[in-house]
Amino acid sequence: MGSEDKLIKWICRLTAITAFFLIGFIIGWFARPRTVNHGHVSKSFLHDFLDEMQAENIKHHLRKFTRLPHLAGTQQNLDLAEQIRAEWMEFGLDSVELVPYDVLLSYPNQTNPNYISIVDHLGNEIFNTSLAEPVPEGYEDVTDIVPPYSAFSAKGQPEDELVYVNYGRTEDFFKLQRELGINCSGKIVIARYGKIFRGNKVKNAMLAGAKGIVLFSDPADYCADGVEPYPDGWNLPGGGAQRGNVLNLNGAGDPLTPGYPAKEYTHRSGLEDAVGLPKIPVHPIGYHDAVHLLQHMGGPLPPDNWKGALNVSYRIGPGFIDGFNQNKVRLNVHTNNQVTRIYNVIGWIRGAVEPDRYVILGGHRDAWVFGGIDPVSGAAVVHESVRAAGKLMKKGWRPRRSLIFASWDAEEFGLLGSTEWAEDHARVLQQRAVAYINADSAIEGMYTLRVDCTPSLHTLVYDITKKVSSPEEGEEGMSLYQSWHKRDNSTERDAPRISKLGSGSDFEAYFIRLGIASGRARYTKNRKTERYSSYPVYHSVYETYEIVERFYDPSFRRLEAVARVRGGLIFSLADSPVLPLDCVEYALSLTKYANSIHQLALKHPAAVQKYSVSFDSLFSAVENFTVAAGDFHQRLDQLDTSSALAVRMVNDQLMYLERAFIDPLGLPERPFYRHIIFAPSSHNKYAGESFPGIYDALFDIENAVDEQKAWDEVKRQISIASFTVNTAAETLKPAVN
Amino acid sequence: MGSEDKLIKWICRLTAITAFFLIGFIIGWFARPRTVNHGHVSKSFLHDFLDEMQAENIKHHLRKFTRLPHLAGTQQNLDLAEQIRAEWMEFGLDSVELVPYDVLLSYPNQTNPNYISIVDHLGNEIFNTSLAEPVPEGYEDVTDIVPPYSAFSAKGQPEDELVYVNYGRTEDFFKLQRELGINCSGKIVIARYGKIFRGNKVKNAMLAGAKGIVLFSDPADYCADGVEPYPDGWNLPGGGAQRGNVLNLNGAGDPLTPGYPAKEYTHRSGLEDAVGLPKIPVHPIGYHDAVHLLQHMGGPLPPDNWKGALNVSYRIGPGFIDGFNQNKVRLNVHTNNQVTRIYNVIGWIRGAVEPDRYVILGGHRDAWVFGGIDPVSGAAVVHESVRAAGKLMKKGWRPRRSLIFASWDAEEFGLLGSTEWAEDHARVLQQRAVAYINADSAIEGMYTLRVDCTPSLHTLVYDITKKVSSPEEGEEGMSLYQSWHKRDNSTERDAPRISKLGSGSDFEAYFIRLGIASGRARYTKNRKTERYSSYPVYHSVYETYEIVERFYDPSFRRLEAVARVRGGLIFSLADSPVLPLDCVEYALSLTKYANSIHQLALKHPAAVQKYSVSFDSLFSAVENFTVAAGDFHQRLDQLDTSSALAVRMVNDQLMYLERAFIDPLGLPERPFYRHIIFAPSSHNKYAGESFPGIYDALFDIENAVDEQKAWDEVKRQISIASFTVNTAAETLKPAVN
Repeated sequence: MGSEDKLIKWICRLTAITAFFLIGFIIGWFARPRTVNHGHVSKSFLHDFLDEMQAENIKHHLRKFTRLPHLAGTQQNLDLAEQIRAEWMEFGLDSVELVPYDVLLSYPNQTNPNYISIVDHLGNEIFNTSLAEPVPEGYEDVTDIVPPYSAFSAKGQPEDELVYVNYGRTEDFFKLQRELGINCSGKIVIARYGKIFRGNKVKNAMLAGAKGIVLFSDPADYCADGVEPYPDGWNLPGGGAQRGNVLNLNGAGDPLTPGYPAKEYTHRSGLEDAVGLPKIPVHPIGYHDAVHLLQHMGGPLPPDNWKGALNVSYRIGPGFIDGFNQNKVRLNVHTNNQVTRIYNVIGWIRGAVEPDRYVILGGHRDAWVFGGIDPVSGAAVVHESVRAAGKLMKKGWRPRRSLIFASWDAEEFGLLGSTEWAEDHARVLQQRAVAYINADSAIEGMYTLRVDCTPSLHTLVYDITKKVSSPEEGEEGMSLYQSWHKRDNSTERDAPRISKLGSGSDFEAYFIRLGIASGRARYTKNRKTERYSSYPVYHSVYETYEIVERFYDPSFRRLEAVARVRGGLIFSLADSPVLPLDCVEYALSLTKYANSIHQLALKHPAAVQKYSVSFDSLFSAVENFTVAAGDFHQRLDQLDTSSALAVRMVNDQLMYLERAFIDPLGLPERPFYRHIIFAPSSHNKYAGESFPGIYDALFDIENAVDEQKAWDEVKRQISIASFTVNTAAETLKPAVN
Repeated sequence: MGSEDKLIKWICRLTAITAFFLIGFIIGWFARPRTVNHGHVSKSFLHDFLDEMQAENIKHHLRKFTRLPHLAGTQQNLDLAEQIRAEWMEFGLDSVELVPYDVLLSYPNQTNPNYISIVDHLGNEIFNTSLAEPVPEGYEDVTDIVPPYSAFSAKGQPEDELVYVNYGRTEDFFKLQRELGINCSGKIVIARYGKIFRGNKVKNAMLAGAKGIVLFSDPADYCADGVEPYPDGWNLPGGGAQRGNVLNLNGAGDPLTPGYPAKEYTHRSGLEDAVGLPKIPVHPIGYHDAVHLLQHMGGPLPPDNWKGALNVSYRIGPGFIDGFNQNKVRLNVHTNNQVTRIYNVIGWIRGAVEPDRYVILGGHRDAWVFGGIDPVSGAAVVHESVRAAGKLMKKGWRPRRSLIFASWDAEEFGLLGSTEWAEDHARVLQQRAVAYINADSAIEGMYTLRVDCTPSLHTLVYDITKKVSSPEEGEEGMSLYQSWHKRDNSTERDAPRISKLGSGSDFEAYFIRLGIASGRARYTKNRKTERYSSYPVYHSVYETYEIVERFYDPSFRRLEAVARVRGGLIFSLADSPVLPLDCVEYALSLTKYANSIHQLALKHPAAVQKYSVSFDSLFSAVENFTVAAGDFHQRLDQLDTSSALAVRMVNDQLMYLERAFIDPLGLPERPFYRHIIFAPSSHNKYAGESFPGIYDALFDIENAVDEQKAWDEVKRQISIASFTVNTAAETLKPAVN
């Protein structure tokens, strides 16, 4: 072989080597992923997570958390908090902390009980209502059962004739004053529970000038047909009564520190400047006691639909006629307000990819007594979600975003624990919170699912419920979605009904004040056939473990289904690379609400014309939003999901959409209700109102003192709503024109 | 060669090939960058950008934009807007749009001029002030020069004795009322311009019960020593007077649409409910006219420091004594408020990497007359920045983040254009705005640089000024930083002075309402030796191109230096991968402000003790913040800058830091001033106050009607400040504990 040959051979070798090196290099170059793979495939884990949550465990949690009363501010509720912290740590959360606040609570005076009397003309108490509910079997030795009372009632012993005000709704007082010509001023009023939040009844009574209000549970509203009272069935016994706060906070949280967290160093207003406290005594009674107060009343006959189901001839009053027409009713209320320490339990799972994005599952822990339904049916579900998440983490899973689990305190005293925490962390929540899923009572009936949520969550709720099995017997193989769909179809389309969020639970500050996409899900009764309010034993001593185990969910499969819905929501929100929020659904809802508020205005055609009230700007804004939402999702379909920044940017748009509906100036007279699309009704905190600013401006406008001014306010509110919807649309458009 | 040998040879070859392939693969794998390189290296472009901005061009822009008056709401100002739009498009911006709003403006009645008279006892006007300023040479043929007036003055012709109130400051009225026993109620007051914003003077006069107020320019405040009046020098001529609005908007923007953008569909309040309009007539005059009003006044002698430099014996009044003691002063004001269309020009450069992050350079375009200094010295600088950015884009540069250039309208009428745009886009700005750099007048003196900015920008300002050359003659080779440093050292450390932001220019809504990091820079006078207010010809017809070209900056190198500072700031903010914001500087400033407000409280040692007023929570919060800021920057040093998400996350923390100081509830009685650390002084809109809530609660507290309540408010404000600083600290901590 000549040296030339050798050279050629070497050149060939070198060329080959170089070629293979280059091929290797090129393959290596392109083989390497351009975005960091964080080593977890989420899809398969969703099913693992859902399957991990089991009825038996929920049953166990419920049993464990309902043995003792755990009223907010008591040692028992602190003990429970400590227990939950310990178990959450054991389950495997990254961190769990107790977060205290010092808030205004309200308790009966232990040596001077609250009750209502019938007083004769000599001032003798000839009848007194009972001081406590008969304790259910098995719980006779339990101490510290707080008797029925109206938390935050004013103290006092007002005495006068009684006026029956039906449910004490705005329309009930209108009827009394405008149609029946009955003046409640200076009288004691008696209202039946139901239909609206009790705090609204008390507010209405105060506005009518009443000097005290009795709240009672009428069997018409707290007994289902053909059902026995507890313990033989799940109806309210005659000796049972509904506890509950009678505040009108409008989202303020702790009455002494509105807008700021009730920390040690926080300045507190005096009681005279506190937010939302009633100025009159209030006390709740059961129907056995109510009979005595109502049985010989005078005054006109009430309208038929004012008559409850007591064995008395309902009269309106005023007057308490018991033979002599001189007997009166006296409230004896000695309840004390006091600043008390409460504790939220807050648990964290750090997100693997975007730790600075938060998905929250929160529900309260405090109960009026045992809390068998409210809240422990919900708290047990949260507990099971935490356990399941911990289990998955041990298998190597970690969510893309951070998960926050919250066990709120003092929900029963005005959503205090959740609101103080929201106030405390308002800045980071505004910047970082993706969604809040609420976990109050998981069951209030035995019929089907009930979901209230922001429109952007509709699609995800449908998706998740399709992945969960129906808990109903005889529906094996059917999804929860199908089961729900056949029982409660939406009035607008062929899909299960989903409703607006109202208030009365801990999502309030997150949704209505901060603008974080929120939702809640629970098992409920048949809205068409079961006409009682809430569930019969609501807020009574009869809310035990046994009522769930015997009647509401013996297999615990309904609670399991609710756990999987709530859990599936937070899982998907925390783990999906692109947030599963649907702006087109929001557009559809806005269209519906705009039409509906327009129709409401059109009930006053003359005034609408006279004052040139136009909804054009609102319809145009909704149209803008609809186009922007459609375009946004179209762009989303073409998103380069391999670009971490591109994904983050669209997720920011999705996350901040709900925030865009927040007006920092708040609604008129309700600075902490700042969501322009949704607010609790001004007439019933439990109900949600859409376009609440316009709605309130239109309310009872035919009786406005200054018609011009009233319609001017309607126009102002239309303008604010239009602007807000336009500005929300802007957030969905490309960042630069 | 045996077949075995061949086999071995082939194995060797294969091994070698595989090895080289693998080496190639591995090198290729690791050679490939893990984050997308967007093909622009920024560092080198900063110098290109700074160098691109040139004195000659700025001179040309200034000349071009000062030929005609361009008052807000006029055709000339719309023409100018169109011209700017066209030129910005030509320079190469991605898009430029005119954004209209319909806001309340105020103009003199063209057929019924405003003036002030001396009226004798028969009602004859024996002296009238001039109706216009003598027009400077070269501008004699210009029409549409609006005469001096106080925009938004009430209409009216009040007539009475005159009281001289010095500068009309709060302390001046205190002295009059408390020490001199002089009652202004029902009188006309005359105040000299200077020291504080004129709107505050008018408000103080109203509070004192005056029925009209005359504002005049005293030579003591509007003439520099040894300088000739314009055109021979840059002092205010005797016939010159200061235009200006006399509103007290407190950040509301358009008086008829507080909180919302003044769009076509926006609901407008009636004039009676408008925000901030004075209820009394106001009119400004020059010192030639003022002599006539002041020369024979009666009443006590004023304190020495109340005496200006007019050739009269200053007296306080009341009374206008002109021999007969019966002459009075009459204001004749016929100015009209009217809703008028204004136009912002908004130009965009889409960011290459993070288009959804905005850096804004904004300054106003509207001028009282020619605007030689205010605002065109600033607008010319913005124009040159846009030109330079366009030039760089043609070389292939595109900033990492989006740049927004704004030419605001109607700044002179209460910051209206900038505030309406901020209201219009509040949601996306809150979510996406990184910083706002203001570009009002670029020069007000011939001495050195003046910078007011948020503390987190201090370090960047120093860095940029080190990269810019001194514009001063004889300082070749010296940096602007060095030149500035030797002329105006900080009182706290060895670095040039940087001050707090006050208000009176368009950054207000961005900084004080929305919490966007903001700053401004301009060339200024020697604060130690030059005691006149502002600059002498401020808001007069003598603010021409020539006054800049002849006196303030003949070489235009000072304006060039200011352009480079403003331009360098926006360039660095838009292009640095990690935002150049310094949280440790914020911590230092908070410490200083906390000490200072504590010292102020300690001036009342007895009350502080009696009411247990403690600043412990504030100092503790500042300490928390200091630790969090230090830790944050330490983590920043170890940041993996190759991770796009990691960088985005820390940038979000940096961007949202300023936002954390915003309290949605606003300051007491000032809902649109929401920054808890900084607000315009309640006594002088131009000045910035730190911890304004506490400051205002302490103000004049020794004269509080209810001492207990007053100190309670101090404690409440300390609590709010403590919470806010703590919550800002939280935003700097790791997203999950």
